Amino acid sequence: MTETPAEPPRTPRRAAGPPGAESATGTDTPGDAGPSGTDLHLDLPATGSRRAALMAALREAIRSGRLAPGTRLPPYRTLATDLGIARNTAADAYAELVAEGWLTARQGSGTTVAERAEPAPATRARRSARAPRPAHDLRQGQPDAAAFPRGGWLAAGRRALTAAPNEAFGPGDPQGRRELRGVLADYLARARGVRTDPDRIVICSGFAHALRLLFDGPRAVLPAATTGPLAVEGYGLAFHRGLLAAAGVGSVPLPLDEDGARVGDLARHPDVRTVLLTPAHQFPTGGPLHAARRAAVVDWARGSGGLVLEDDYDGEFRYDRQPVGALQGLDPERVVYLGTASKSLSPALRLGWLVLPDDLVDRVLAAKGEREAWASALDQLTLAEFVDSGGYDRHVRRMRRRYRDRRDRLVAALAERAPHVGVTGIAAGLHAVLRLAPGTERPALAAADRRGLAVDGLAAFRHPLLAPEAMAAPDGLVVGYATPPDHAYPAALDALCDALPPP
Amino acid sequence: MTETPAEPPRTPRRAAGPPGAESATGTDTPGDAGPSGTDLHLDLPATGSRRAALMAALREAIRSGRLAPGTRLPPYRTLATDLGIARNTAADAYAELVAEGWLTARQGSGTTVAERAEPAPATRARRSARAPRPAHDLRQGQPDAAAFPRGGWLAAGRRALTAAPNEAFGPGDPQGRRELRGVLADYLARARGVRTDPDRIVICSGFAHALRLLFDGPRAVLPAATTGPLAVEGYGLAFHRGLLAAAGVGSVPLPLDEDGARVGDLARHPDVRTVLLTPAHQFPTGGPLHAARRAAVVDWARGSGGLVLEDDYDGEFRYDRQPVGALQGLDPERVVYLGTASKSLSPALRLGWLVLPDDLVDRVLAAKGEREAWASALDQLTLAEFVDSGGYDRHVRRMRRRYRDRRDRLVAALAERAPHVGVTGIAAGLHAVLRLAPGTERPALAAADRRGLAVDGLAAFRHPLLAPEAMAAPDGLVVGYATPPDHAYPAALDALCDALPPP
Repeated sequence: MTETPAEPPRTPRRAAGPPGAESATGTDTPGDAGPSGTDLHLDLPATGSRRAALMAALREAIRSGRLAPGTRLPPYRTLATDLGIARNTAADAYAELVAEGWLTARQGSGTTVAERAEPAPATRARRSARAPRPAHDLRQGQPDAAAFPRGGWLAAGRRALTAAPNEAFGPGDPQGRRELRGVLADYLARARGVRTDPDRIVICSGFAHALRLLFDGPRAVLPAATTGPLAVEGYGLAFHRGLLAAAGVGSVPLPLDEDGARVGDLARHPDVRTVLLTPAHQFPTGGPLHAARRAAVVDWARGSGGLVLEDDYDGEFRYDRQPVGALQGLDPERVVYLGTASKSLSPALRLGWLVLPDDLVDRVLAAKGEREAWASALDQLTLAEFVDSGGYDRHVRRMRRRYRDRRDRLVAALAERAPHVGVTGIAAGLHAVLRLAPGTERPALAAADRRGLAVDGLAAFRHPLLAPEAMAAPDGLVVGYATPPDHAYPAALDALCDALPPP
Repeated sequence: MTETPAEPPRTPRRAAGPPGAESATGTDTPGDAGPSGTDLHLDLPATGSRRAALMAALREAIRSGRLAPGTRLPPYRTLATDLGIARNTAADAYAELVAEGWLTARQGSGTTVAERAEPAPATRARRSARAPRPAHDLRQGQPDAAAFPRGGWLAAGRRALTAAPNEAFGPGDPQGRRELRGVLADYLARARGVRTDPDRIVICSGFAHALRLLFDGPRAVLPAATTGPLAVEGYGLAFHRGLLAAAGVGSVPLPLDEDGARVGDLARHPDVRTVLLTPAHQFPTGGPLHAARRAAVVDWARGSGGLVLEDDYDGEFRYDRQPVGALQGLDPERVVYLGTASKSLSPALRLGWLVLPDDLVDRVLAAKGEREAWASALDQLTLAEFVDSGGYDRHVRRMRRRYRDRRDRLVAALAERAPHVGVTGIAAGLHAVLRLAPGTERPALAAADRRGLAVDGLAAFRHPLLAPEAMAAPDGLVVGYATPPDHAYPAALDALCDALPPP
């Protein structure tokens, strides 16, 4: 038997490529010159002088901007082997182009494209309008980027990647690396009171990704069509509301009072099957959900077949007493716990996790998709090692002291310069709420803007469907005291105090 | 003016938390003990003996499995500070629990949970059924995971993270790190003939993510409702077809012949606006798209206002001549170039890139979402440094030699043991196609399965809508020769030769 004479295309046993392929060089020399040198793609015509063709191709590549000024060319020997031409031919072409001013040759640093000033082609006509960086940044939601533990992270990465099995560099498990899930199960039990085993954890790339897995797209776990609207807290992130709205999920706001979200109101919404809460530290107003209400919302879920989504975005940062444990510990079958490294380490990692009731694990994995690992396996291994070696705990403790100090300086500055302004929600987290007199939030935001201070008003967090009679709408500012680097913090506080309304 | 007496919740200036919060300890000692030690969440009742309460809480945490055997507890001093209790009290509780056998104290290694054998709670009832690992793996699509350049990657990571500005650890740009986009623009111009500038590149987490941005979800760039069906090659990945189908995008298969996809057939589908091709190396049959067809498909796009999606999944791996340049270079305004590090480095990185026509950049960014960076910024910085320092080129060249050697060994084994089996598509890539006599593909797959050999049949890649009269359906095997580690390759080749049908 010989080769089946059927379509689709085939090449001979020792492939030479189809005739007329535009990159054919006219030779069949195996085109690889060892591990040194860079890759350079050039199109040479199949016939005619090799030297002239190479020179023309290099000139065109430089003229068109494909080879930028300063780009180092491969050694002529390498290029000659790659193109299947004689070494002398390549050396001559380089030398002539140096003579013509296209290339620069310098002892010890090889041949580079000469510095010239010509526009590159295919540039982008216009840039997206991005807001300029503010002079002072007290927006909520971000840890101090300057405090990322570079050394500890790199050391953990070295240990993790050195020890990793080869399969770690293969396609990977969409549920997330087993190493990370194992370490997280222990850590979350110890530090947050979460009850789980590693098989119930799914790694994702942050809270927004988790929300999408649950609600967005044709494979979502809790599609709006079958599970009805979602109950949310009366104050929360507009970004989350927008993500839910884009997924077609309606939301019902629960009013807040001094004990947190009024979860008793769930009884008035029989169509609601799911409630999203921030029990450890209500975002943005700042208090924990009262113990009686923690029990009540779990009872509601048990009685109604419902589900509680627990957004534990900054549960590690509590300053004046030990952290409030996760609601999930009360009933792991009725609570989905959502955690993230975005606040405790950095949003640049894109790492988060869902701790799921048993019957949701396979459904979340189906939503994630068989080949969609998303989160970098290398970062997952590094985080596992960082937690396991104690580096994560040390970092959290260090940041807790730093943020508590930031908070104390905020409180002290207000006490001195604006004692008429109340400050709340300061027992935990990375932000505080400044309570303003009615009608003064918008003027304060305008005053902040004039001083180059970026800060959020409380009104922006209010759910648009929250009725005025259900809950008063206080004026206030949400001050993220973690965001600026240390050196910029005093000036940011100054700008804030300057922007506040007079007594 | 004093604090506004309105809802939502507030705490006094020096927050003590609401009464009744279940983790209240009855003291107000600031709960942070410096950078050493681990975090441990415990619920103590507000009243009664502190020592008894702490012991009960620790026992419960161990009994319930929250504290696993071997877990190291924080030093008693740290725990005492965290809980706001006397150090002696914490030390006594530890000592008694050691005496009771719950804890183990060892000089120099602190206090750990004693090794016991009790089931953890909230374990997962059943595991997803995952296929066992095959004895021999010649499936296509994966690079050799054992060849990941750990040392070079770690060194690049150290340089990149040490040099990175602080903002790199902040929330990040959904378009991707500027450093990586700049390096990729140069690299893709030099090695693949792509014409772009960094502002037209969007980083994503791989080809499937790119397909989702373009087609899936309410913010997709090319929604099925407005852009009609997508033309695809008659043979391709079922995974991609499934992803498109899930997004509601219909696909029209183009037959293949020895010059690649018959793009002339696009004229017969006036409703098609977009065509997805693998021009450098048709997947899986293996040939490049003929130069005349490259020009023809760009002409079609220009004439019809259409768009070409170029999947350049393994363009760097070409063995017998220099790589075929990217189609994108012919018209950057009509071709979307899709690249990935999944084949050249590792799918574990979850890094890919789109090179876009100018008018699509903002639309792809809108689909990506304002806060959805997805790809790890740390890996992006590391890859930028890895490419910029020449490590990426060296790795590609090293792997090119290694895979060419694998291919040569495959060809030699077949020549010796199954000379009746034709082998095609071997000029490039990480796989070859073995052409079998009609009717023998299924028996060969069954024989492979009996030998523990995982390998794909050609039929699995055929588009279900490809009409028999449009293109014959050859029997064949798609052999991924990159997947096994070096030591396992000879046995995999043996199993393959054993499984092939006799002449």
